[in-house]
Amino acid sequence: MIYDLSHLLNNNSPVFPGDVEPEFKQISNIEKNGYRETRFHIHSHLGTHIDAPAHMLENGKTLDELDVSCFHGKALIIEVETGRNFIEKDILTPFEKDLADTAFVLFKTGWSKFWGVQKYFDAFPTLSAQALQFLLQFELKGVGFDTISADPVKSTDYNNHYAIFNKGMIIIENLIFPEDLEATSGEFSCFPLPYEKADGSPVRAVLKV
Amino acid sequence: MIYDLSHLLNNNSPVFPGDVEPEFKQISNIEKNGYRETRFHIHSHLGTHIDAPAHMLENGKTLDELDVSCFHGKALIIEVETGRNFIEKDILTPFEKDLADTAFVLFKTGWSKFWGVQKYFDAFPTLSAQALQFLLQFELKGVGFDTISADPVKSTDYNNHYAIFNKGMIIIENLIFPEDLEATSGEFSCFPLPYEKADGSPVRAVLKV
Repeated sequence: MIYDLSHLLNNNSPVFPGDVEPEFKQISNIEKNGYRETRFHIHSHLGTHIDAPAHMLENGKTLDELDVSCFHGKALIIEVETGRNFIEKDILTPFEKDLADTAFVLFKTGWSKFWGVQKYFDAFPTLSAQALQFLLQFELKGVGFDTISADPVKSTDYNNHYAIFNKGMIIIENLIFPEDLEATSGEFSCFPLPYEKADGSPVRAVLKV
Repeated sequence: MIYDLSHLLNNNSPVFPGDVEPEFKQISNIEKNGYRETRFHIHSHLGTHIDAPAHMLENGKTLDELDVSCFHGKALIIEVETGRNFIEKDILTPFEKDLADTAFVLFKTGWSKFWGVQKYFDAFPTLSAQALQFLLQFELKGVGFDTISADPVKSTDYNNHYAIFNKGMIIIENLIFPEDLEATSGEFSCFPLPYEKADGSPVRAVLKV
């Protein structure tokens, strides 16, 4: 069974405050042209997407510099109970064994239910400094969140982004976990578009259970 | 091992004659903004991409109407020797048993070596009517080609497209097979971008062997 962990995109999809508004426009149709075609006017961090280390690091790798295997592997889903402002270390420690045997950690905070409303950009949970340090001792390919960012939206230092990128890892943002997904691990894929100098890419993130 | 079956995209990527020229433009950079971001101005059939049944069928399904499992499964790579104008039935019949046990058939004609030059759009091999009928008796999710189209570029009837779409299958175009890929089967993935009313999508096509 393959689960879709991606938000459906359209012209009303929310973007990080100040970012390019997406436009998907049908430019050919069957009646007139004999076929349908769509023009995209979007940006590299739209919807469910990957941040490459090059998103913020001067010498960080772009997605096209990473082998495709960097976007696929075992994932562990860690649930963060409602009401937490931070994903703290005590949430991670019970998973110490599992963390040693996974490629991706995906945090399920439930914040995706606010996708499309203002609250989505407000006080969503982010990794505490201690939790981040604990997490980064493991050999991971990436860390994913069902929120707009790995750092608070008003962050100015982007500590979490920098720390994760400095380990050569990718960040996946704006994930959504389907209601019927009960498994807490599986085979995760988030293959980016293969464009040059990719600082990020919208993706179809999926979990095969 | 995961092999990348996708062409790298940039502003010079070839498009189907008359189509939208791609533009990938850096709109934020680290010096000025503290982060890199790229704006895409592209169309739904750029580079290695999927055609949905809705690309040409009035009532055909869009990619967002298909379950994500439609974009993943066992693939059989069938090599077409150089010099053939058509992928004829005699090429397929030796694979009758394998075809009954695969989700995708990917045709390796070698035409991807002309990516970026005029010849790419010229007389590339396409399925003959007989081969098409033989192929469509199997329960497949999709058919892939390392050429720009499932039909000759000057086709006016688009017979191959229509026949494949009428079976509810997807078409993958502009694949490329890496030189070091020796396996002739594997686990194929081509997850499209999750946008509404998707007639097609550029994808990162991969094969896990």
